Amino acid sequence: MNRREFNVALLATIATATLGRPSKSQTQLRVNGARILEHINALAEFGKNPQGGVGRLAYSEADRQGREYVVGLMRAAKLDVGIDAAGNIVGRRTGSAALPALLFGSHIDTVPEGGNYDGVVGSLSAIEVAQTLAENHITTRHALEVVIFQNEEGGLIGSRAMDGELTETELDLVSRSGKTIREGIKFIGGNPNDISSVRRKAGDIAAYLELHIEQGGILETEKIDIGVVEGIVGINWWDVTIEGFANHAGTTAMNNRHDALLAGAKFIEAVNRVVTGIPGRQVGTVGRIQALPGAPNVIPGKVILSLELRDLDASKINTLYEKIRDEAQQIASASGTRFDFKEINVNKPAPTDLRVRQLISSAARELGLTIRQMPSGAGHDAQDMARLAPVGMIFVPSIGGISHSPREFSRPQDIANGANVLLHTLLKLDRE
Amino acid sequence: MNRREFNVALLATIATATLGRPSKSQTQLRVNGARILEHINALAEFGKNPQGGVGRLAYSEADRQGREYVVGLMRAAKLDVGIDAAGNIVGRRTGSAALPALLFGSHIDTVPEGGNYDGVVGSLSAIEVAQTLAENHITTRHALEVVIFQNEEGGLIGSRAMDGELTETELDLVSRSGKTIREGIKFIGGNPNDISSVRRKAGDIAAYLELHIEQGGILETEKIDIGVVEGIVGINWWDVTIEGFANHAGTTAMNNRHDALLAGAKFIEAVNRVVTGIPGRQVGTVGRIQALPGAPNVIPGKVILSLELRDLDASKINTLYEKIRDEAQQIASASGTRFDFKEINVNKPAPTDLRVRQLISSAARELGLTIRQMPSGAGHDAQDMARLAPVGMIFVPSIGGISHSPREFSRPQDIANGANVLLHTLLKLDRE
Repeated sequence: MNRREFNVALLATIATATLGRPSKSQTQLRVNGARILEHINALAEFGKNPQGGVGRLAYSEADRQGREYVVGLMRAAKLDVGIDAAGNIVGRRTGSAALPALLFGSHIDTVPEGGNYDGVVGSLSAIEVAQTLAENHITTRHALEVVIFQNEEGGLIGSRAMDGELTETELDLVSRSGKTIREGIKFIGGNPNDISSVRRKAGDIAAYLELHIEQGGILETEKIDIGVVEGIVGINWWDVTIEGFANHAGTTAMNNRHDALLAGAKFIEAVNRVVTGIPGRQVGTVGRIQALPGAPNVIPGKVILSLELRDLDASKINTLYEKIRDEAQQIASASGTRFDFKEINVNKPAPTDLRVRQLISSAARELGLTIRQMPSGAGHDAQDMARLAPVGMIFVPSIGGISHSPREFSRPQDIANGANVLLHTLLKLDRE
Repeated sequence: MNRREFNVALLATIATATLGRPSKSQTQLRVNGARILEHINALAEFGKNPQGGVGRLAYSEADRQGREYVVGLMRAAKLDVGIDAAGNIVGRRTGSAALPALLFGSHIDTVPEGGNYDGVVGSLSAIEVAQTLAENHITTRHALEVVIFQNEEGGLIGSRAMDGELTETELDLVSRSGKTIREGIKFIGGNPNDISSVRRKAGDIAAYLELHIEQGGILETEKIDIGVVEGIVGINWWDVTIEGFANHAGTTAMNNRHDALLAGAKFIEAVNRVVTGIPGRQVGTVGRIQALPGAPNVIPGKVILSLELRDLDASKINTLYEKIRDEAQQIASASGTRFDFKEINVNKPAPTDLRVRQLISSAARELGLTIRQMPSGAGHDAQDMARLAPVGMIFVPSIGGISHSPREFSRPQDIANGANVLLHTLLKLDRE
């Protein structure tokens, strides 16, 4: 059966399991997994790609419509919904005590050829948690805020506004929607002239929780229900330019060439050798390459490629980078080329909070779920929130480890499990 | 001094050496080197690039104006000038006997950022040879035809019309000028509906001679005046597609990747290793590469690159290709990727005629010039003419081996030497 049929079948199963339960004590509280699926399927209609999956680029018409749908769900969950100046959707629920708010959420924008799970699972599960609390007339001590961050895929824009990192210059960059970020924020109901009002101070937030699909294949392979995220890896990205000498591919003898692409090939191999040469979970990738002038009959004189290194430990990234620079120097000397490294972006590693990790683990165990600790190799809004508050991230299995693809998929039961862990971690945090 | 000043200085020197000579016997006959330079400098104005060099794309306005200028020079050289249906400029001079014509010439179109020597030296020297004969009232036994082939840089279009290879389908391809070849031919005064009239039969042409800059650095490095071309290498071009699996660069462990670009890098190295692994003058180049989707944070799932092999011996090209396929198979097995080779173009090697080479050599020796035999690594109109007649090619040094660049340069004395060798080889052929 196709995915939709599969979802409908499982929806029926889960409905039997979770609907119509009597009001129960907080420990026995469960989200309505069937309702999350219903909402996932409904949201999937906004930006649906003809070839499957979804393209709901931030600031597109599909994004705006998807956001309207989500605002409706939040209102139904009795949240007091507003759009902040940065365009984030914030749904608030008052607490019984004068305590800083507990935040939880994710994002609903996608890459151009994305799926229906990345960001969506965490966003709709967060709303479901609020709905469950409302239906069961539970008032927490802390105020609760469900946050749907805007434009996560285009550079964590919403969460970077909240931790004060978003610059005026960045507002004028053109996003993949074709609009500048400034225009995009206006388009989704924010006010780009008042971005600073969005900034939160350390202490304003009691904690931030985010449920997300793993986007890797570890949980599925190891048949584990819940990943307790140790932290979000640091990501360093450089553009590497290799200068050789462009010349005629027919008349220039092999021993008389300064082939920038041959040097680039040796470099790509060196990156792989260095990164896999030491133990650990670090990754290194050359994902983009351009050879100039780029004709079959001209020896490339110039190559520009990207180098990306990720690890939970910033010093390990530095060590790998130094080794790669050494290798580049050797390639350059041997081939008569020149390497130039330009740092494009650095996201520092963002460890999650030990206490929050413990609460996630115990919530999962009490639900009878298996867990494992793991890093997040992907970036998330949680990494920005980590600058402001203790954060925790809950991962659920992602089939085949596929993400940013129409083939992205997480099983309904895994999603319901994740939402229940989110709910109970939140309740535990509230009692702390 | 800059190139223009240098030219002017040498023009003065050469003028002293060659102008004002009395009418002389055929052996003592010399071209007017200063006049060739004057014409090179004048032609350089058509399509002159602001940053230096020239961009005289076939079928551009600059090309049309340059051609008009050249037609004027040909008329001044007492040639009977016409544009054939394919757009080639043909200047004819009647012979004293009923013998097939001796053809000689080259092209004046350039690449977008080209120089003033590739094609131009041979074209203007051929006209100078005709002018010298006219001024000295020499009538050859064979009819002579100076041919300025159209659109050499865009695929030897004019000479391929003459040997009957140009297809109707090709006429509708868009050239770099933006015009289709059909439109381009019309634009320069040809008649694309009558291309077949241009076709020559084997036996119609006594021989074809072409003077050209070397486009490599061998003559300059070895301080040799004249290259006697053994043949034009065969050129085989394939597009190679490597299929891996695109995935998230952060969440996909190093040992779980099917990185098409890493496989591509190993392939580029293998091409170099195979081509340099056996003795000889063969060359192999990967000049173009594309990695998809091409983002720094995505493992490339697909790579498309070009593979070009050149040698005078077609069977050697095949041997190299087979070895490269074997290497690709090994890379594919080790990396879980798939290689697919698509043949895009094959130019068979075109050996020059032994007797013509001997005549070029003796003409050069009689002029007191040093010579060496060498292949042409670049393609030339002569390779198409080799299907119709015995051909010979004369190379003159190219400084630094640079071509297809504003930095392309050949010394005035070398150009004059080449033109004199062309003249005397022609006279020898005429006497055969």
